[in-house]
Amino acid sequence: DLRTMKHVLENSLIERLTQGFARNESQINGLQDSDAELLRLPGCDLVLALTTDSLAEELEVGLYRDPYLIGWMAVTVNASDLAAVGAEPVGVLLSETIPPDADDDFLAALQRGVSDACSASGLHVLGGDTNFSPRIHMSATALGVLADGPIMTRKGCRPRDAVFASGPLGLGSAFALTQFQSGSEDPPQNMMFKPRARVREGQMVRHWATSCMDTSDGVIPTLDQLVRLNDVGIKLTGKLEDILHPDALYAVRAADLPEWFLLAGPHGEFELLFTVPRESRERFSSTASALGWEPIEIGEIVKHQAVTMPIHGRQQEVDTTTIRNLFTEVRGDVNQYVAKLVTLHEEMAKTTLVHH
Amino acid sequence: DLRTMKHVLENSLIERLTQGFARNESQINGLQDSDAELLRLPGCDLVLALTTDSLAEELEVGLYRDPYLIGWMAVTVNASDLAAVGAEPVGVLLSETIPPDADDDFLAALQRGVSDACSASGLHVLGGDTNFSPRIHMSATALGVLADGPIMTRKGCRPRDAVFASGPLGLGSAFALTQFQSGSEDPPQNMMFKPRARVREGQMVRHWATSCMDTSDGVIPTLDQLVRLNDVGIKLTGKLEDILHPDALYAVRAADLPEWFLLAGPHGEFELLFTVPRESRERFSSTASALGWEPIEIGEIVKHQAVTMPIHGRQQEVDTTTIRNLFTEVRGDVNQYVAKLVTLHEEMAKTTLVHH
Repeated sequence: DLRTMKHVLENSLIERLTQGFARNESQINGLQDSDAELLRLPGCDLVLALTTDSLAEELEVGLYRDPYLIGWMAVTVNASDLAAVGAEPVGVLLSETIPPDADDDFLAALQRGVSDACSASGLHVLGGDTNFSPRIHMSATALGVLADGPIMTRKGCRPRDAVFASGPLGLGSAFALTQFQSGSEDPPQNMMFKPRARVREGQMVRHWATSCMDTSDGVIPTLDQLVRLNDVGIKLTGKLEDILHPDALYAVRAADLPEWFLLAGPHGEFELLFTVPRESRERFSSTASALGWEPIEIGEIVKHQAVTMPIHGRQQEVDTTTIRNLFTEVRGDVNQYVAKLVTLHEEMAKTTLVHH
Repeated sequence: DLRTMKHVLENSLIERLTQGFARNESQINGLQDSDAELLRLPGCDLVLALTTDSLAEELEVGLYRDPYLIGWMAVTVNASDLAAVGAEPVGVLLSETIPPDADDDFLAALQRGVSDACSASGLHVLGGDTNFSPRIHMSATALGVLADGPIMTRKGCRPRDAVFASGPLGLGSAFALTQFQSGSEDPPQNMMFKPRARVREGQMVRHWATSCMDTSDGVIPTLDQLVRLNDVGIKLTGKLEDILHPDALYAVRAADLPEWFLLAGPHGEFELLFTVPRESRERFSSTASALGWEPIEIGEIVKHQAVTMPIHGRQQEVDTTTIRNLFTEVRGDVNQYVAKLVTLHEEMAKTTLVHH
């Protein structure tokens, strides 16, 4: 079976790096099974949720340059992992590597970004580690807790479950597109990108969902990972334009690129994708709505292990393995990345119709 | 008063970076007050200890090149922080940035280093985050727990307390010296450096000590921080050669440098420095000895806010502020760093005797 975990480069690297590590018996989740590590410790009634995430490629390729955004994202990527397990946020530890010549304005903006993202997601800065190097590097670790109630991981969805997104999709890819757009006559549009981790939503979703994962790497990589972990397929239904953020749609149309590129990643929008059993999805939606939140039903879980979506006017199987590995394979070259997606798009136009 | 926290560059940066951050009410320790953050959460009988630490400068300046050592140290620096609060280790989250062209041998050695250090310190790998960049970067976060019993932080020592080291000192500086020795006829001696976090010792020390801190930044910076945080002074008594590791002594003598340079940092030996009330120090020592451990009594807490030690054959006040800031001020140039220490040493020979 080609669609196993190890055919995705990132998964196979993680497996290589972690083989031989003994797992702690207090850990609830298996490797890769959830966005945050879940621990049940003797002497503690709470389940602890711990996650660590860095800004590395985003800084390396120059996607995040604004110090406020860097601070905001260093916290938000971790808060989003807590959201995806439905944890109540507690605090964050920062590990910052800062250029020795960074000026006061830079440091103040970085700090404001961290502070604002903490406020927005209910986290406090617990401590951290500061180092100096010409290359900025930011990583953080977030701690959350779960009182009694169900455990939510990436695993557990079943055919016929409804697939939801916590909000409109595509802003992560659209932001990257506008930052790197080359060969354009106009200067790249300065797009607003300041995702809020879906922390409150996650705490509610935990009581309804059969699986959940955030779209930190983009929608298609997230769908692909859910498909691999659960031995199911995912069918996106309806029109793509109905699930995409208007600003993202505007950007992709201005660049004359297909709408589904907004779902390709690798830079995501930090929404949650989650599944709800068919029979409870209407009650879930109305409960969410009563809280002033409108999650978007984007598709359904199917048996056949593939991701399909409406492209070229028909339900099309998407080569998610190739798409997930693409950015690594082109070594982060954005123009090459887009060119390869265009080739994939043209190939799909030639393939015969698939039905499942 | 010159000897406040903010006259050390690192402290003042940390203050600038953290001002305005709201602290979490469940956090026991204040900023900089302990090697790990301590949390008492509602619904949990345990105190949680959380710490994050990176290898940044060590990789940047090429001090750690061997992938096994890199993996070992990424875990050990964090385990050592848990040791310094006397926590029982639980697990570690790794945040690794790896060169895309790293080969299998490199990755296997890195992983073995992580795995061996985890075994040595009673930690398990809980999860992590892997990124790619030409520049390797390793950071980790460790979680430990404290059941009932006293809380141990960097604060609480009082004049007349005895100052202990968990083991012989100076290997961290000696290792750096041998790695960077330049202008030498012989190739640098390949010194063994593989510090073990004093995790078991820390759990015992917690029941005796009035303050504790690990020497991750070297002995003098650690003494300096304890002095600043506690408004006391520290007097190292006896001969320096009695508290230094034989291999470290050998290296510093071969380089024809003063013995006290081994205490200067910024690369430390990851021992614990801790204080025990005078009246219980003999009972403490015999309890330790019964467990097969021989902590070294290196000095005492005094009232006058200074660090003194035997240099040039007399009890000499050491300019710890200058020494702590030195490596940053010379921008990591090791030869300049040693040259400035030599100047300091020569100046001390000229100053008049101090007595406290």
